[in-house]
Amino acid sequence: MALGPLPVHGGDLVAAERRWGRPQAGWLDLSTGINPWPYPVPPLPQEAWTRLPGRAEEEGLRVAAARRFGVADPAQVLAGPGTSALIQALPRTRAAVRVDVVSPTYGEHARAWAAAGHDVRAVSRLEDAQSPVQVVVTPNNPDGRMVAPEFLRVRAAALAARGGLLVVDEAFADMAPDISVAPFLAPGLVVLRSFGKFYGLAGLRLGFVLGEAAVLAAVAAQLGPWPVPGPALAVGAAALADDDWERATISRLAGAAADLDGVLGGAGLRLVGGTSLFRLAEHDDAAGLYDRLGRAGILVRAFDFDARRLRFGLPPDDSALARLAQALA
Amino acid sequence: MALGPLPVHGGDLVAAERRWGRPQAGWLDLSTGINPWPYPVPPLPQEAWTRLPGRAEEEGLRVAAARRFGVADPAQVLAGPGTSALIQALPRTRAAVRVDVVSPTYGEHARAWAAAGHDVRAVSRLEDAQSPVQVVVTPNNPDGRMVAPEFLRVRAAALAARGGLLVVDEAFADMAPDISVAPFLAPGLVVLRSFGKFYGLAGLRLGFVLGEAAVLAAVAAQLGPWPVPGPALAVGAAALADDDWERATISRLAGAAADLDGVLGGAGLRLVGGTSLFRLAEHDDAAGLYDRLGRAGILVRAFDFDARRLRFGLPPDDSALARLAQALA
Repeated sequence: MALGPLPVHGGDLVAAERRWGRPQAGWLDLSTGINPWPYPVPPLPQEAWTRLPGRAEEEGLRVAAARRFGVADPAQVLAGPGTSALIQALPRTRAAVRVDVVSPTYGEHARAWAAAGHDVRAVSRLEDAQSPVQVVVTPNNPDGRMVAPEFLRVRAAALAARGGLLVVDEAFADMAPDISVAPFLAPGLVVLRSFGKFYGLAGLRLGFVLGEAAVLAAVAAQLGPWPVPGPALAVGAAALADDDWERATISRLAGAAADLDGVLGGAGLRLVGGTSLFRLAEHDDAAGLYDRLGRAGILVRAFDFDARRLRFGLPPDDSALARLAQALA
Repeated sequence: MALGPLPVHGGDLVAAERRWGRPQAGWLDLSTGINPWPYPVPPLPQEAWTRLPGRAEEEGLRVAAARRFGVADPAQVLAGPGTSALIQALPRTRAAVRVDVVSPTYGEHARAWAAAGHDVRAVSRLEDAQSPVQVVVTPNNPDGRMVAPEFLRVRAAALAARGGLLVVDEAFADMAPDISVAPFLAPGLVVLRSFGKFYGLAGLRLGFVLGEAAVLAAVAAQLGPWPVPGPALAVGAAALADDDWERATISRLAGAAADLDGVLGGAGLRLVGGTSLFRLAEHDDAAGLYDRLGRAGILVRAFDFDARRLRFGLPPDDSALARLAQALA
């Protein structure tokens, strides 16, 4: 079988346009796992833009994040300019070691640990991991697989006893708060939380690392002073304190995911996993479907490690859902 | 002589309040070198907040920055989330080596190179530097000392010939574009440019590194994907393209610096240097003056390496200037 061109990266409409041309109806970008109904950006105080972010603003965000994530002590929360920056920084805080990454998953983890000089190995389940540092994304991207918090706690404690570390990326945990291990921080456990996906504000670049003070201090030293912009501090603190919006959004996303499942199932795609921000589906001619959707101006996510699967983000409204259904028909 | 308490960090009003209490008239913060008349933040497209920053937006900022800084090729520009983040990242792109930092200067340079494992030495003039990596801030903070671009070019070329690097931090060069070495990028030369100071938008966290493609790629790999938030891409591109605002601001800042000099001179302070965003002045009882100003609710910058000097930022209006004059009287 001839290899086709590599899949376009999520959200890269420039690359999509180079491949399929500019669609008449404009792009329908379903290639990311970002909430299409963003938290409304509140009016920002002028100082958020003009002054260097102050300790009071940083503390305000930490307190709101600790409450939202169920972390007892705001000192166990460190904010950074996007989870990506934290994923890069964390591996540089430790001497070279063997690292197991539960895979396939978000590719930056393995890349960042390897770039920092660690010896990275892919394992298919956390149960198979044996290295001193272990990385797992739960719910996993792209398949939505979850690991029970109790299992994570036991594993982290075992790693801590030998000086190791369990890194748990909960980028997509907001829709299922009960599966988060963040309320059970202990030595050997580090949790990453994203802001932009659930809150639909990916452009803001805000993410968190939760863990012991010593780990956070080492990451903070990598980031340097004032790592989070004033606007992100203000928007983040407001959004993370808004319980009504959180509840309504969890419910809205679940409904939209069910609607999307209906369309995918109707087109003969088999749902194999996901979260309510994206669905992973299988099809014998996934590559053909991917191309057909691209030519119709709909960008979804394909994977070089599995040619039979496609990942679909949430269509933002009924007409987008209908457009997807039509292109799949 | 008994050592007094350490000076409060620039902009740290929490620490200032702990030391002197909350001033009735509110703080007049002259402890930073940030333009008090910020570039007006334009209305932002919703996508700047909601979407992951795209290649087109990143390219737009690079093009505007290249034009503003006189860099021939936008590929020689890399934006980061604040110059601080770039100062942290740069030392981690090179194997451990000896580094000379022309000092005293902004403290993060020496700290970041040392934290990355390099052997850092302070030298008092660039002429005295002999190590393979040399760092100079021009105009320097806090004394405003400048190094001629021609000298920097020759030094960078000499360092390049032995695999070395000259790092030139032009954080305060916007007011004197003619002294910038950015139009003369060549192997062995890296230039840092800040956005927040001259444009008065320090909360935005935006900075640039200018240099050869290989150096920029190594720094970019440290930062990870999407390092600059959407709002910063949009505001930065608009501001850097605005020639009228730039001209008017250079002139306004020069006028305000002259007014400040008048007040400082009238109070018996001797001007020893600065840029038009801050003035460095000497006084035999600088420590006493620092404390008197603090009790009057005016925070200026003192230095642990020179007890006779104080740095003053620009008072934002006539009443602030009058308040400073009164407190110094």
